[in-house]
Amino acid sequence: MEVSWEASVTDSINTVYLLFSAYLVFVMQLGFAMLCAGSVRAKNAMNIMLTNVVDAVVGSISYYFFGFAFAFGSGSASNPFIGTDYFALKDIPNSTYDYSYFLYQWAFAIAVAGITSGSIAERTQFSAYLIFSFFLTGFVYPVVVHWLWSSNGWLSPSSSNLLFGSGAIDFAGSGVVHLVGGIAGLWGAFIEGPRVGRFDAFGKPVPMRGHNATLVVLGTFLLWFGWFGFNPGSFDKILVSYPTTTDQGNWTAVGRTAVTTTLAGSAAGIATLFGRRLIVGHWDALDVCNGVLGGFVAITSGCSVVEPWAAIVCGFFSAWVLIGLNILALKLGFDDPLEATQLHGGCGAWGLIFTGLFAKEEFVVQAYDSGESGVVRPYGLFMGGGWGLIGCQAVEVLAIICWVSITMGPLFYALHKLKILRISTEEEVAGLDISSHGGYAYVAHPDEGHPRFYADYMRLQDQRT
Amino acid sequence: MEVSWEASVTDSINTVYLLFSAYLVFVMQLGFAMLCAGSVRAKNAMNIMLTNVVDAVVGSISYYFFGFAFAFGSGSASNPFIGTDYFALKDIPNSTYDYSYFLYQWAFAIAVAGITSGSIAERTQFSAYLIFSFFLTGFVYPVVVHWLWSSNGWLSPSSSNLLFGSGAIDFAGSGVVHLVGGIAGLWGAFIEGPRVGRFDAFGKPVPMRGHNATLVVLGTFLLWFGWFGFNPGSFDKILVSYPTTTDQGNWTAVGRTAVTTTLAGSAAGIATLFGRRLIVGHWDALDVCNGVLGGFVAITSGCSVVEPWAAIVCGFFSAWVLIGLNILALKLGFDDPLEATQLHGGCGAWGLIFTGLFAKEEFVVQAYDSGESGVVRPYGLFMGGGWGLIGCQAVEVLAIICWVSITMGPLFYALHKLKILRISTEEEVAGLDISSHGGYAYVAHPDEGHPRFYADYMRLQDQRT
Amino acid sequence: MEVSWEASVTDSINTVYLLFSAYLVFVMQLGFAMLCAGSVRAKNAMNIMLTNVVDAVVGSISYYFFGFAFAFGSGSASNPFIGTDYFALKDIPNSTYDYSYFLYQWAFAIAVAGITSGSIAERTQFSAYLIFSFFLTGFVYPVVVHWLWSSNGWLSPSSSNLLFGSGAIDFAGSGVVHLVGGIAGLWGAFIEGPRVGRFDAFGKPVPMRGHNATLVVLGTFLLWFGWFGFNPGSFDKILVSYPTTTDQGNWTAVGRTAVTTTLAGSAAGIATLFGRRLIVGHWDALDVCNGVLGGFVAITSGCSVVEPWAAIVCGFFSAWVLIGLNILALKLGFDDPLEATQLHGGCGAWGLIFTGLFAKEEFVVQAYDSGESGVVRPYGLFMGGGWGLIGCQAVEVLAIICWVSITMGPLFYALHKLKILRISTEEEVAGLDISSHGGYAYVAHPDEGHPRFYADYMRLQDQRT
Repeated sequence: MEVSWEASVTDSINTVYLLFSAYLVFVMQLGFAMLCAGSVRAKNAMNIMLTNVVDAVVGSISYYFFGFAFAFGSGSASNPFIGTDYFALKDIPNSTYDYSYFLYQWAFAIAVAGITSGSIAERTQFSAYLIFSFFLTGFVYPVVVHWLWSSNGWLSPSSSNLLFGSGAIDFAGSGVVHLVGGIAGLWGAFIEGPRVGRFDAFGKPVPMRGHNATLVVLGTFLLWFGWFGFNPGSFDKILVSYPTTTDQGNWTAVGRTAVTTTLAGSAAGIATLFGRRLIVGHWDALDVCNGVLGGFVAITSGCSVVEPWAAIVCGFFSAWVLIGLNILALKLGFDDPLEATQLHGGCGAWGLIFTGLFAKEEFVVQAYDSGESGVVRPYGLFMGGGWGLIGCQAVEVLAIICWVSITMGPLFYALHKLKILRISTEEEVAGLDISSHGGYAYVAHPDEGHPRFYADYMRLQDQRT
Repeated sequence: MEVSWEASVTDSINTVYLLFSAYLVFVMQLGFAMLCAGSVRAKNAMNIMLTNVVDAVVGSISYYFFGFAFAFGSGSASNPFIGTDYFALKDIPNSTYDYSYFLYQWAFAIAVAGITSGSIAERTQFSAYLIFSFFLTGFVYPVVVHWLWSSNGWLSPSSSNLLFGSGAIDFAGSGVVHLVGGIAGLWGAFIEGPRVGRFDAFGKPVPMRGHNATLVVLGTFLLWFGWFGFNPGSFDKILVSYPTTTDQGNWTAVGRTAVTTTLAGSAAGIATLFGRRLIVGHWDALDVCNGVLGGFVAITSGCSVVEPWAAIVCGFFSAWVLIGLNILALKLGFDDPLEATQLHGGCGAWGLIFTGLFAKEEFVVQAYDSGESGVVRPYGLFMGGGWGLIGCQAVEVLAIICWVSITMGPLFYALHKLKILRISTEEEVAGLDISSHGGYAYVAHPDEGHPRFYADYMRLQDQRT
Repeated sequence: MEVSWEASVTDSINTVYLLFSAYLVFVMQLGFAMLCAGSVRAKNAMNIMLTNVVDAVVGSISYYFFGFAFAFGSGSASNPFIGTDYFALKDIPNSTYDYSYFLYQWAFAIAVAGITSGSIAERTQFSAYLIFSFFLTGFVYPVVVHWLWSSNGWLSPSSSNLLFGSGAIDFAGSGVVHLVGGIAGLWGAFIEGPRVGRFDAFGKPVPMRGHNATLVVLGTFLLWFGWFGFNPGSFDKILVSYPTTTDQGNWTAVGRTAVTTTLAGSAAGIATLFGRRLIVGHWDALDVCNGVLGGFVAITSGCSVVEPWAAIVCGFFSAWVLIGLNILALKLGFDDPLEATQLHGGCGAWGLIFTGLFAKEEFVVQAYDSGESGVVRPYGLFMGGGWGLIGCQAVEVLAIICWVSITMGPLFYALHKLKILRISTEEEVAGLDISSHGGYAYVAHPDEGHPRFYADYMRLQDQRT
């Protein structure tokens, strides 16, 4: 009863592929931490970095005990809405799920709260953060995962009972991850209101620049690096050959997914570079960073089922979605320090729709039926694939908006009413780091690191006395 | 005489797995550099980063010429204490060791001196650093590796002559790497004494905060990322099937090891977050970072042979080991700027004991006998596995403490007596960067980057003159 | 017509190997960004980071549309000078090139302009940057790739018509990538002239230190990490067994390449550490970082075909090449803020020559004829391999210098004459960030992050008024 040679080889290759992809997805947590830290003011840097670390450690434990079970439970009591087994990794590993799959999914789960933390940055009590993060990562998000990615979810494209004969295609989670995080952020930022001083007495926005652009660029590149695990890694298995071709299999599709991801982010970055140049009159590195990320968010849904040229289309429009929503947010007096609502929410929704328009039949069959010839599935509307897929995509957008709104909205509202959501104005002005975390992130005594300035300063003082 | 298809496939998969794991372990060097840089004062940042770079480059050359030979030499003149062949990679590759194995071990070797460099930070002469680093990486550490990880080491769990019928299980090196580095740091920090101003005239500790918390968080996440190479990579081969199961092999155990590692670090992080909140009254990001790392250090020994739930136990207690030792260190007037002695030494020792208590029979057999059925080995005491394993674990703790003490203790003492260990008080106050490295790490001229401050400053000066 | 099991396994393993190598090479873009940011003054940090992001996004689109076609096109109209098919990935994937190969090559392409951006840092108009970057990445570089790495390039070591019966060995691109980037930088920096204040009225150099050494160390380690994708990844396939051995194949050579890379960089780092200590009198972390990078650049050409001991020789001499060229540059009044011309140009050229001297016959046959026994090829001159290889290496050096000079030289000169190359002196003094990018990279209000300094400052001001 030994494992066959073929099974050993297959499992080994797939595990190497999936585990190293999981490690890359984990890097996104670091990327988020750096992006967030650089985008807030120095006085809140420690706070936002701590939230990113906490997302990871709290997420690990909650996903182990019940998050994974809610998401992927498929036993007798499970249903299209929520899973009900595999609590605390009971019955794992089995023939469907190995530990590597858990780790890969864990890395996704911890990302969601990180997105939302950006929306409510610089003004939220840390204990409120702990509560919402635990609830979002442990319950709200896993339920959406179950709908889309488990074999018995009601929106899943691989269940035995496909909605509209199709199911929604959200390959790596434009909706499941980014739209969920973005809508949660929308409610948080809306209920908390803008930061002190973000809009003047006449409602005009006052720029509040992050304290360190280097960290923003560092975070962006780390997220790009991590996205190579996020999107191409979402095939779960690389050693799957397609029966109707002579030399293709998941290995081809994995590579193509890396290419579509790259092209979408790049097209969005270029569109943002020139678009913002026209609008604000200078070349803004931070806008380009956000633009690139918006392109990634948008392509995440369809990365495996569209042609490279379509990915460029996707990225180009996602740039304008982001630019437009940012202008709208300012007009409405909505303050999301990381633009997370606009970026992850807006571009995530656009990505779902895009997939419904541009998904290619051949690739849909390969990604969801392992290339079985003769399978008939709806695909992109613009590619001649009918209304089944785009319908499911629209349903996913609406379902996620509703589900997150009816869960996270009341939660944030309750925290608000209990007065444990937002910090006091005094604390906000002083900064979260000194009020809640025991000190600032940076220590730059005048006698250290600034020799010339210090020398002048001392001379000034001497002459005065 | 061509290579068989099966051998080619096996070697290719295992090499991909091992090499990319090695690359991740190498990232830990960067993680250490950032963690150390952020944890010291700005005036010593350049110094400590240089030591991390030097560990890597000096370690490469010394490990190539003799370190690897001391560690893994297995020829006729080799013995249970030290290896004596493969100097300068002679006879490599062979049927046991390929270049990828050397690279993986090299990445471990350069980490050890990095741990110790934290203990003696901010007050050590650079030339003394070069000497101790070369001696530790080139001789003291490889000898311990030989004891535990070579096929003829006296403590090895895979030799033909097992101590207590068991050998010590130190899978990825809680003892071999972390305890060695921590004990070396203990002697260094003890002999050098505390930094100037660390304790006041009454022996009360004066806080000396690192200059940049962002770097600490960056370093922590990079270390986490690298630990995915350190622990799950230590199987060396992933394509090994277990004869007594129908679908498991090293690929299962590698994934489980990634999961236990994650859970231990996370549990330790959470325990530290709330524990320190109770003790110091605020939520401290830096404590959480150190807590997470302590959990990783502790699980490193048993990561491959314990259940995920046990990893949570391991991490929870490692947090209290670290918190307790940190309080003790302050009481004793012991100054280790990176807490390396407490973290790598204390949690490393705890990890070895933990493995002796919680190692599961099935996993021990899989990790050390490739799952051969019928093999009888001691395993965790609490799991009913008898005293053989815990005995060996205790022997390992004592053996490492003795060996490092009788080698590194005299070395540091000799450097101290020769007055080449510690810098002068003047140099320490001015900072190592300006006294030894030609300038500070940061240049922030008032006319750059601080426009508003500079404007005020100029106005001040103008009004005065 | 399904894919055979053997082909599926082979393609899966090779794709995992190549894709994850590509991801590592991509990390080099981040490494460059951090290295560059830290090496310039704070007032230009945003600018240089934006150029690195732009290299990536513009490079993606241009490499997709035509760069890859120029480089690897091999259809009927293709010729030894330039490729002419595969525009916009038409006919990809095919039996020779899959998407993963495109992604790997893309990651190389975007690195080239990053090298050159260092040479012209702190004084170049952003629109000029866009033009030269697009031209270099989209045309100049792909043509050189075609010469060396395509199957019908005139200098290629794997074409059917080998120059001097050998072709040039530039395994991962000391010449193709680094010399190209360095020579382009030479012309850019020469035509622009030194930064304002870099040399005083008597032509004596005035130190202009970068603003953040931590970023330089971060960048260096990230580049080291990425180089593990750059060099060992350049075999493209890992599952290739050698017919004349019993247990070796590309997996052995891939590991050895990682080892030679590591040893060359380390030897160069040590030589620089002690060399610069003798010359300037202190231990300089930044010099060591550049030394390590110089060693990597030099070994990049021969990493797959030399013994580990030879890699140490390579690195040792590359340190002196860099030290010597840096002294020469100062004497000549040449200002390259990142030393890119000296480092990538000088060490790149040295690396090509080194390969011609030390390439080992067995390894050359393995790398370029898959280990076929009986193949006769020239190899290193010092190894008894005749003049064929060293001749080709010299031809490559000259050909690249000429080609880049006749393309990039006139381009930079035209931009200069059109007055769109260099910024005005006022803008240069103020910094590119404020003049072109809307603000500085760092915001450090006195009321944030510098509590003690601010308190003193306020007191000063109070007492004065």
